[in-house]
Amino acid sequence: MGLGKDYASQECSLARTLEVVGERWTLLVVRDAFYGVRRYNDFLVHLGIPRAVLADRLQTLERAGVLERQPYQTSPQRYEYVLAGRGLALWPVVRSMIQWGDENLDGARRLRVFVHALCGSELGPSGECSTCGEPAVAPRDVEMLPGPDLDTARTDSDAVSRALLQPHRLLRPVNVERAAT
Amino acid sequence: MGLGKDYASQECSLARTLEVVGERWTLLVVRDAFYGVRRYNDFLVHLGIPRAVLADRLQTLERAGVLERQPYQTSPQRYEYVLAGRGLALWPVVRSMIQWGDENLDGARRLRVFVHALCGSELGPSGECSTCGEPAVAPRDVEMLPGPDLDTARTDSDAVSRALLQPHRLLRPVNVERAAT
Repeated sequence: MGLGKDYASQECSLARTLEVVGERWTLLVVRDAFYGVRRYNDFLVHLGIPRAVLADRLQTLERAGVLERQPYQTSPQRYEYVLAGRGLALWPVVRSMIQWGDENLDGARRLRVFVHALCGSELGPSGECSTCGEPAVAPRDVEMLPGPDLDTARTDSDAVSRALLQPHRLLRPVNVERAAT
Repeated sequence: MGLGKDYASQECSLARTLEVVGERWTLLVVRDAFYGVRRYNDFLVHLGIPRAVLADRLQTLERAGVLERQPYQTSPQRYEYVLAGRGLALWPVVRSMIQWGDENLDGARRLRVFVHALCGSELGPSGECSTCGEPAVAPRDVEMLPGPDLDTARTDSDAVSRALLQPHRLLRPVNVERAAT
């Protein structure tokens, strides 16, 4: 019972949500998709996740309608993963968890700052832009900046982590330099 | 690696949050605390959780400053668990996950409705009260009502589940009738 991923007999939307995104690593995969990570190998190096676990989580999220696969290359056919509608709707969950960690753990370190790209104001505690009177800024309009307490010495040295040390508009593909093959 | 609960080397507040509340069952314990469940046996029957897992989760949450133990009886000494400051700060996480499940899973069934107790208006999608212009309604001011799609035939028959079929102010102790001992 403790090892399954279902919560039998719970007539509760939180339990049902956790059945989709509550497994270990799952929300980190979704976070990376908001950051613009799209390709299997980029998730792999950025997350430091075992291959079998990553493959399982991507498949689960695709089946649940959170991610969708899109071809980006033929012969051989290759796919990348982007957030579908249900995935984009997870932004308030991801954002509020990041905020809670920033404010409540480890000496309240602000590792990332999210601003409304249209006006440059930092998002408020509910994800709103009080400058523009926008109660819920959509992720495509959010710019992510390194926070004042981000310790670059503790940041991984993979290509995705390095790219995300720069300001980055959410959902735009992370610009990872790839070796020619 | 896939079985631990830490995410080594992630300089990320989401990963750190998940290290505290990402384990299976944890957020359901926190949800119950928002609903006013306080006692070990009430968590046990309402969640249908193995005893060892519940004891572990309560201890983890107390150590993290999410829950705090308060004595409610002497000889024998008995404790109940209430949300501490860090626990109350998890309301946006719990609320946004409930909302995502309501809107995105299983045919978009609304199982619970959250209203601003001071004016009776339903909370908006960011947890705000647009009637009062309150951007983030605190959980103590939230009344929870059974939603239009709650299937009482699928609801558990334990005393906590039965009590929560009535309108209930968050954080107020659930009124569970107890057999005389």
